[in-house]
Amino acid sequence: MLPSSIADLPTPCLLIEQAKLRANIERLSSHIGVLGCKIRPHVKTHKSIEITQEIVNGGNTQGITVSTLKEAQHFLSAGYTDILYAVGIVPNKFMQAKELMMEACDLKVILDSPEAAHLLCEFAQTQQCHFKVLIELDVDQHRAGADPLGDTLLDIAKLLTAAPYCELMGVMTHAGGSYDCFDHASQLALAQQERDLSVKAARRIRAIGIDCPMVSIGSTPTAFAIDHLSGITEVRAGVYVLFDLVMAGLGVCRIDDIAISVLGSIIGFQQQKHIALTDAGWMAMSRDRGTSGQPIDQGYGVVCDARGVILDELIMSSANQEHGIISKRIAFEVQDISSHFPFEQFKIGGLVRILPNHACSTAAQFSHFYLVDGDAVIASLPSISGW
Amino acid sequence: MLPSSIADLPTPCLLIEQAKLRANIERLSSHIGVLGCKIRPHVKTHKSIEITQEIVNGGNTQGITVSTLKEAQHFLSAGYTDILYAVGIVPNKFMQAKELMMEACDLKVILDSPEAAHLLCEFAQTQQCHFKVLIELDVDQHRAGADPLGDTLLDIAKLLTAAPYCELMGVMTHAGGSYDCFDHASQLALAQQERDLSVKAARRIRAIGIDCPMVSIGSTPTAFAIDHLSGITEVRAGVYVLFDLVMAGLGVCRIDDIAISVLGSIIGFQQQKHIALTDAGWMAMSRDRGTSGQPIDQGYGVVCDARGVILDELIMSSANQEHGIISKRIAFEVQDISSHFPFEQFKIGGLVRILPNHACSTAAQFSHFYLVDGDAVIASLPSISGW
Repeated sequence: MLPSSIADLPTPCLLIEQAKLRANIERLSSHIGVLGCKIRPHVKTHKSIEITQEIVNGGNTQGITVSTLKEAQHFLSAGYTDILYAVGIVPNKFMQAKELMMEACDLKVILDSPEAAHLLCEFAQTQQCHFKVLIELDVDQHRAGADPLGDTLLDIAKLLTAAPYCELMGVMTHAGGSYDCFDHASQLALAQQERDLSVKAARRIRAIGIDCPMVSIGSTPTAFAIDHLSGITEVRAGVYVLFDLVMAGLGVCRIDDIAISVLGSIIGFQQQKHIALTDAGWMAMSRDRGTSGQPIDQGYGVVCDARGVILDELIMSSANQEHGIISKRIAFEVQDISSHFPFEQFKIGGLVRILPNHACSTAAQFSHFYLVDGDAVIASLPSISGW
Repeated sequence: MLPSSIADLPTPCLLIEQAKLRANIERLSSHIGVLGCKIRPHVKTHKSIEITQEIVNGGNTQGITVSTLKEAQHFLSAGYTDILYAVGIVPNKFMQAKELMMEACDLKVILDSPEAAHLLCEFAQTQQCHFKVLIELDVDQHRAGADPLGDTLLDIAKLLTAAPYCELMGVMTHAGGSYDCFDHASQLALAQQERDLSVKAARRIRAIGIDCPMVSIGSTPTAFAIDHLSGITEVRAGVYVLFDLVMAGLGVCRIDDIAISVLGSIIGFQQQKHIALTDAGWMAMSRDRGTSGQPIDQGYGVVCDARGVILDELIMSSANQEHGIISKRIAFEVQDISSHFPFEQFKIGGLVRILPNHACSTAAQFSHFYLVDGDAVIASLPSISGW
């Protein structure tokens, strides 16, 4: 039976504040809606059917984005058919993709090289199985993708178009470089670059007589920064529904907007070391230290009381597998172990909430989340993991 | 059906080399056996019944150590009754512990403060449930534990002994500071300190007329370093069965001893950036960067070919959720992107194995592991996760 209060939850566990979740969903839905476009939410952040339903309820969405074919299978089973698998596909995933399509999944896959296109076309023809393909673009020297202005892009487009069982659906990109943009101006500049290069790539394909109906872009920072979306058919973003300390560090949200936290119990104190220990170690928080390269290093997370009120001077400064170390922020920053810890504020078995660096990696540590409204537990939301 | 060759496995997936696993198990079993002691293996590293059975088959073990009560439940279901739960227990886990004992689990719990002891004694009496307790010691200023030479230790011992439903079983410690000892001499010194302070703590308890039958110590580095174990009743260690780059960096094993790797597929190349991309991102490797503070920073892992042969000049230099970036080691170390990448050695869909920083965190990313002998897949071993 679902506990009615967070005081009765086992620890560590993962909490999601419903009001903040809904406000975050509404914020992007409204922004993209005003720009006349649609969101294809990336469900990798939470891998939860119920949260995805909240996103769809928020409006202005079309289909979903997944990072694994297991996510595709999971969401297909829940009735989501329009799915973009946003990691370059390789031969050992072709059969799994085919099986999804045989279950009526309207799957789109991506690739960024003639070699990968060749392999897919060959499989598609041998299996007489129709594949819908987007070409991944590199718009910011971040990771994967073909050059939007290069010859390879057109080579892939021709190759796919010539193949009897492949259909070029369009182009897609992810401006992951936005995670290094620490102010609105640089986020906007990158968002414009992401948009403009993608639109240009689509035009180049059309200019050689090949259809390119989809132009799909997105990252949470660029999605919020972008000023117009002419020529873009959809925006992909994932982490915005929960937000996290990395996004707060970029100024994309306030710390108060973060909907995700880990609930832990105080399991001990070390008076001489000026620390408290919790049962929320890295197994609960993940090893993600996404803010370590940001102007404000938030350690393993920002510490809040049981109600979610931020305890400004405290930080989760280090972690073992099932132990979290809480210290004063100053002690973490200057390695000054003598900074007095406010032991009087805590007791053995007391609860704290820790706001994580990165929602995607922390959520992935849990098989289910508790949807909460302050102290009250509203629901337990199952998630999935693995491949 | 289980694929017979690693070439037919889905990627990313986790491989465990059976021969290396068995050699690692034999090495500690032999060392501790010669010293006339027993190992209480920590199963948190893998959470696998089958691997634990291999450890037991290796000899010189008694019972197991767990890091969560869910692990305790899982291993109890498989017939392991003698279980030490090695994280300080707090009230919201008391009932779960009681339920395990009602299922005939010979559970031992730990705590390190009079406050925690009070809470447990109260629960035990109210529930008329017998609890076996070890007092956690701090032997190296690492994390939790009572001072082995302080008054609190004796206060807790008296408190537990006076309580009708609690039984003091002994003392335990984990010299986690050994992860900062980079040569045998310092590992031996800490191992001796861990042993001597634990033996001393037990003697102090006995000197006030209280039984202290168990003296449990251990960490993988100190377990291998220790020269004699007089007065110690068991040694706990976990990661030694798989080993990892952190242990290799400490000199506790050779890189060739590492039994765990992640199998990934090459999904793309970026010629201008001199990188290759795989489908083994941080979701597969974990975000653990345990070697980042060591003399040799191994990035997200050491890259091997499909057979497991180390490709010396390559490293997994960065990671996104489902993308791993492979670059030349020199490029990773000096941020010199122009270092030529050996593209000719790879093809789209080709396989690589990545040796991880930390076996515990990488294994935790997978619901099952493939036990392999070179190319051949021997078995699929299920694991568990969560709390």
